[in-house]
Amino acid sequence: MATATDKVLDHIDSHLDKSVERLFSLLRIPSISTDSAFAPEVRRAAEFVAEDVRTIGFEASVHDTPGHPAVVGHARGGKRPHVLFYGHYDVQPVDPLHLWEFPPFEPRLVEIAPGRKVIRARGACDDKGQMMTFIEACRAWKAATGSLPVDVSLLLEGEEENGSESLPAVIKANRKALKADHVFVCDSGQWDRETPAITISLRGMFHEEIVVRTADRDLHSGTFGGAANNAIRVLSRAVADLHDKDGRIAIPGFYKGVKELPKAIYSDWKKLNLTAKKLLGPIGLSLPAGEKGRMVIEQIASRPTCDVNGIWGGYQGEGVKTVIPNEAHAKVSFRLAAGQHPETIQKLFRAFVKKRIPKDCSVAFINTKWTTPANVTWNSDLVTRARAALTEEWGKKAVLMGQGGSIPIVKDFKETLGVDPLLVGFGLKDDRVHAPNEKYDLSSFHKGIRSWARILGAMAE
Amino acid sequence: MATATDKVLDHIDSHLDKSVERLFSLLRIPSISTDSAFAPEVRRAAEFVAEDVRTIGFEASVHDTPGHPAVVGHARGGKRPHVLFYGHYDVQPVDPLHLWEFPPFEPRLVEIAPGRKVIRARGACDDKGQMMTFIEACRAWKAATGSLPVDVSLLLEGEEENGSESLPAVIKANRKALKADHVFVCDSGQWDRETPAITISLRGMFHEEIVVRTADRDLHSGTFGGAANNAIRVLSRAVADLHDKDGRIAIPGFYKGVKELPKAIYSDWKKLNLTAKKLLGPIGLSLPAGEKGRMVIEQIASRPTCDVNGIWGGYQGEGVKTVIPNEAHAKVSFRLAAGQHPETIQKLFRAFVKKRIPKDCSVAFINTKWTTPANVTWNSDLVTRARAALTEEWGKKAVLMGQGGSIPIVKDFKETLGVDPLLVGFGLKDDRVHAPNEKYDLSSFHKGIRSWARILGAMAE
Repeated sequence: MATATDKVLDHIDSHLDKSVERLFSLLRIPSISTDSAFAPEVRRAAEFVAEDVRTIGFEASVHDTPGHPAVVGHARGGKRPHVLFYGHYDVQPVDPLHLWEFPPFEPRLVEIAPGRKVIRARGACDDKGQMMTFIEACRAWKAATGSLPVDVSLLLEGEEENGSESLPAVIKANRKALKADHVFVCDSGQWDRETPAITISLRGMFHEEIVVRTADRDLHSGTFGGAANNAIRVLSRAVADLHDKDGRIAIPGFYKGVKELPKAIYSDWKKLNLTAKKLLGPIGLSLPAGEKGRMVIEQIASRPTCDVNGIWGGYQGEGVKTVIPNEAHAKVSFRLAAGQHPETIQKLFRAFVKKRIPKDCSVAFINTKWTTPANVTWNSDLVTRARAALTEEWGKKAVLMGQGGSIPIVKDFKETLGVDPLLVGFGLKDDRVHAPNEKYDLSSFHKGIRSWARILGAMAE
Repeated sequence: MATATDKVLDHIDSHLDKSVERLFSLLRIPSISTDSAFAPEVRRAAEFVAEDVRTIGFEASVHDTPGHPAVVGHARGGKRPHVLFYGHYDVQPVDPLHLWEFPPFEPRLVEIAPGRKVIRARGACDDKGQMMTFIEACRAWKAATGSLPVDVSLLLEGEEENGSESLPAVIKANRKALKADHVFVCDSGQWDRETPAITISLRGMFHEEIVVRTADRDLHSGTFGGAANNAIRVLSRAVADLHDKDGRIAIPGFYKGVKELPKAIYSDWKKLNLTAKKLLGPIGLSLPAGEKGRMVIEQIASRPTCDVNGIWGGYQGEGVKTVIPNEAHAKVSFRLAAGQHPETIQKLFRAFVKKRIPKDCSVAFINTKWTTPANVTWNSDLVTRARAALTEEWGKKAVLMGQGGSIPIVKDFKETLGVDPLLVGFGLKDDRVHAPNEKYDLSSFHKGIRSWARILGAMAE
């Protein structure tokens, strides 16, 4: 006899077109959270999502915040396990726009290889597509069996790409209603296309913009060149010095508190044998740029890192302008490992940069944002059940892996609700997340929905 | 009895308003030569100038070139000394526009200190204002005495700020008509507000844009951060390494062929006692950034230098985008001293940058422009006469000085016409040339016209 989960999986398979259609409607909303010009679109996305989950039977409301609104929903039945799901419907900016194959908010289904279809649009993976895998799983349970197998609450936000600053207050204000037995988060990746994964550590993030000022005006290099300092020259020095020759971050004290991996995880990771060629080949590179002597999987997943995300100053137009620029900017961000504290990193970073600013020049630090790194329990009953469900769906044992990116809100679930979240996601390395031509494999979306349907079923057992 | 020159000077004084009005009309034309969108405006400026000099009696024509047009004019009388004057009516770009007190092509007369009026607009000094000092001097000679004291030809161009690439062919094509006894150039500065100067050396220029490419797309720093190289990180290293700790340019072989100053000039310059405070104080700086152990006047006037004129890459918008950029650009220019060859500098520069590009990344060099450095004779009869005329007008002995900037066409006068140009200009250090709020002192304009009137008179004696 077919189990309830089997019925749900059949329903998912036969209604995939409708699921894709709903995702496309959400992808058409340009909900860029880091650019205030798009604030009305983020709100539109919130209202769209709230309305959508109401059709599955959720009581849903849009919560105003000092930033972008959040959506809270509940579908409670009674004395059953209570699951809280987190996802986000805001997206990254889309520039450089000219590199997109077609407009980023006009989603299309594209066949990129024989039999391999992908959903292409900004947010296709991060995180609209991923968020909808869970919502579609709930919809299928409701449609195929008349009800959800467990109590489900939703916490969906519109500020993740901008640091989730407003969400902790929403969690606190709804602490009682959101207090669940389990928290599920769908904003992470798989090990590879065939192998599912559960993420067990998340790096934190520290971001600041350096603004260097030299003279009180732009100067002509023919009049002052040689004698007058140049803001780009000063800034480049500070930025170049952030890394030493061995790929280590050269800020004194930066690595203090960073722990080595648990031995069991280290040896699991080593067995995975992720080579530089395998990781970097598909993106056109071959030489790891991180800390010498570390496995590349450590470089991307567990070790702290530093990247300059943007730099600008002086003349950027056509032709030649022999100007000595008096101002230059760089956006610098760090991925932090558990054991590092953003406040300390800020102090060390600023001191390091200031040391490289000549006495007659100045530096300012703006656009400060950070999230604290988090570790997630990796040997709980919840992880074991989810791992079994994923393994059943994919036919390959789910990997316990570290994630390089940060999901700002994870630490708040732990601190405010006292619950360790379970991080399961279906993103792939080639999804072009945050870049032009972002995509989400149709199979990621489909099997993602099926995976959540199985995990929800397993929670009810 | 009043001499002819006295009559001309009186005429200049009593018609200054009209001279300013004519300059304003020229300043209203946004003739930016480095941006092809403004090409029609450069042509409009050429036609305006040609029409204007025709009213003084010049036979003037606008010459088409593969770039912007040039203006050639002649007012020949007979067997008298023949003077060729050079200036340019194109201007630098105006960005950042928001730093201008008012729109850059709406010139105004502004009182910046009690009794000190300045003409403010893009090109007020460089070079529309300077060019018009000579043309207004010719006009006054014509109006006050009925004729010019010597034969005069004009070579006025619209491409100086973009490397004067088309002008050598114009000179060659008009070689016979332009072959003069003396060449005057008005595109340089005074020693200070009270002290006139003759420029006796010009640095050359070498410019290239570095384009660094790393991965084949922008990446998410959470997914690839640590392992994947970052185009800004690579570029910053190359740019920062261009200077060593002592302010010297660190490219091996860069200084080869650079000669020390003639002893007479060195000791003159030393006596001028230009301190760092005096040079840099007015622009908000105090510490010379050039070669340690050199006088600041050497740093700005005779030594080769290097400046990054612009840099960009990655995310430059509001907020945070944790991207690993796969492309970054820097515009780098060098001022070259006599004895350096642009072709050699290009080879050394490219090798230096390439050495700093990881093997799996790439670099391209675009927007290459150069001008060869030039020395001008400093002890000729022409220099002696002009120096006397300037000294008479200003009441202070004219300084023989080196200029940091380059005037691309100077070497062609020497090579094609066989004439050493005389470089006299009235620009001041605080003119904000190439920067927002460019200005030209009304007194620079007025006494500049008078200075040329005297020099023309002296040539006829």
